[in-house]
Formats: sequence, structure tokens, C-alpha cells
Amino acid sequence: MIKPEKIILGVDPGTVIMGYGVLQVIGNQPKVLQYGVIHLSKYDNHALKLKKIFERILSIIEEYHPDEMALEAPFYGKNVQAMLKLGRAQGVAMAAALSREIPIVEYAPKKVKQAVTGNGNASKQQVAGMVFKQLNIKDKIDFFDATDALAVALCHHFRRESGTSGTAKSWKTFLKENPHRKK
Amino acid sequence: MIKPEKIILGVDPGTVIMGYGVLQVIGNQPKVLQYGVIHLSKYDNHALKLKKIFERILSIIEEYHPDEMALEAPFYGKNVQAMLKLGRAQGVAMAAALSREIPIVEYAPKKVKQAVTGNGNASKQQVAGMVFKQLNIKDKIDFFDATDALAVALCHHFRRESGTSGTAKSWKTFLKENPHRKK
Repeated sequence: MIKPEKIILGVDPGTVIMGYGVLQVIGNQPKVLQYGVIHLSKYDNHALKLKKIFERILSIIEEYHPDEMALEAPFYGKNVQAMLKLGRAQGVAMAAALSREIPIVEYAPKKVKQAVTGNGNASKQQVAGMVFKQLNIKDKIDFFDATDALAVALCHHFRRESGTSGTAKSWKTFLKENPHRKK
Repeated sequence: MIKPEKIILGVDPGTVIMGYGVLQVIGNQPKVLQYGVIHLSKYDNHALKLKKIFERILSIIEEYHPDEMALEAPFYGKNVQAMLKLGRAQGVAMAAALSREIPIVEYAPKKVKQAVTGNGNASKQQVAGMVFKQLNIKDKIDFFDATDALAVALCHHFRRESGTSGTAKSWKTFLKENPHRKK
């Protein structure tokens, strides 16, 4: 069953720029509430970058009270060092959601592109163009990180609509279904 | 200057077992307050593992009010997938500290071994033996993850004593020294 209103927070984590996008879905109609990027390159201290990600995601959560977080999550990367850093950035973003009991759903980049444009190998420009068209956004495209974040939120909306998201369960539901996992 | 009393939380993050250890340092004398492991293999859901790490680290922080967190942080690993998962585990543990304004200091495993045993290539048994001896712990060694966590806390204590820890600054100090980073 789909709730009459749902807020989805999409996040595209990165260690240089992190994108975010907030969608409100009424009935089955998605509407953009907010989107943007968190610039991290100006913080030369790695822990400070992570702190900034945590605080900003938390402040977005406290402003929009999303029901679910959709995360664009690549599972493969160039090298182990980069993946460790990406994992940390994903980890703190996820911790912000977990600290507010918000379920997290992950989508691989290919799945997001497929859901939004119909082509798993679409370019970032194509994804951004389709996201803006579907959400009726007239702005100039500044950062693909922000449009990617909107794309993963939109992907999650489509998957929920078609009943294929599957993994987005509330902790309450999860614990109800798995009572032995309570402790 | 060294504060008369200091609480150090040592963490050895992992995605199967996470170790933790809490030291109280009075003058220059370290004393163990608590140590143990968080078993994660029983949670088959990856997000639930991360949630568990976040909650447990947070509850340890709220019980002992550590002044600093010392993290055992390998920078190299076998493969990108494992490093992404490790990064996420580190990220949520770090987020728990960041959410309580606790400075984080990282030490590579070799540095921890060197500081505690005098040998950067010491075995886990040797590290555990030396940690128990120095902290006057008489228990049976159950998990090297817990003794590794005590070891990184102890390593941080030694480095603070000798004035070589360097990276453990409070956010207040950091921001005072870097006023342009405030925003």
C-alpha cells in the first residue's frame, strides 16, 4: 500500500561534492521540494568533511522529515583507498538517517539510470535532462551530483510504485517480522 | 598540557565483529573501564549492522563520556568491496563520535603495534598480552578485536604523553585556528 503522502530524500554521496534531493510524492505524483550539493573540497581535514556530511544530512532530515532515504551506491571503484573514503562518506550519511530511524534503500548507478531514462548506460546529462523534465524543473543544471541525487529519489519512487523496491521497510516492520533480531 | 583526567574510547571497526575499549587516564596512569565486542554476523541485513554499530558506540559514549576517540584504521585492504564495507563501518562509528563533538584520531595498525609492543609486526597475541600486562587485566583473552581496541586507546595515550599524537584537536580548537573554515 502506498501512503497518500511520502517524502523521499535522495543522496549521492561523494568525498568532494555530495548531492541531495528531496521529493514529495502525493498520490503517485512526485514534486521536488529541495535539491543541492554540499561542497567538501574546501575542508582539508578528512574528519571535518565527514562531520559536515553528517550535520548537513541531519539538518535536511530535520527540515523535511523524509520517510525514506534512497542512496546511490556504487559497489565497485577504481582503488581500495577511494572505496574506503567513499564508504566512510556513505557511512556517515547513512548514520544520519539511522539516527532518526529512517529506512535506507540503495540503488546501483546503472539501476538509477535505467529507471529514470530507460537506459542503464545514459550519460549524466541525459539523466539530468530527464529528471528536470519529469519534475518540471526549469533551473539551469549546475551540478550533476544534485541531479543524480534527485534521480535516485525518483528511481525509488518508480520502484515503490511498481512494487519492486522491496528493501524499504521501516525498522518497526523489520523487527515485527524478525522478532528474534530485537536484541 | 595534559588534563588531570582523560577518557579515551578505542575502536577497532569491522563488519563482522567490532571491538571497543574504554580507558581512564589519571595523571599518566591508564586504567581500563570497559572493553568488549559487538557481534555483527547475526544481522544479515547490512543497514541493520550499521545501525547496531551506531547505537552501541553512541551508548558507550553516553555511558563513559570519552574526551577522544582513537580509531584503528587500516588504509589498505584486499579488495574494493571489502574496503567499501569497512569504510561504511568506520563511517558510522565516526558519526557517533562526531554527533557528540568528540575528536577522532586515527592510527594505522602498524603504529598501534609499534606503540604497544615496540614491534610494528607483532602478532595479535603479542599485542593482547602486552595490553593486558600494561593495564593489569587478569581476564582470559576472548576476542582480539577487543584487545586491539584497547591497544589503539593505549597507543593514543602513549602518543599524547609523548606529545606526538598531534591530530587530536577539539573542534573548538580547530575552528579557532582555522576561522575561515567556520562556514
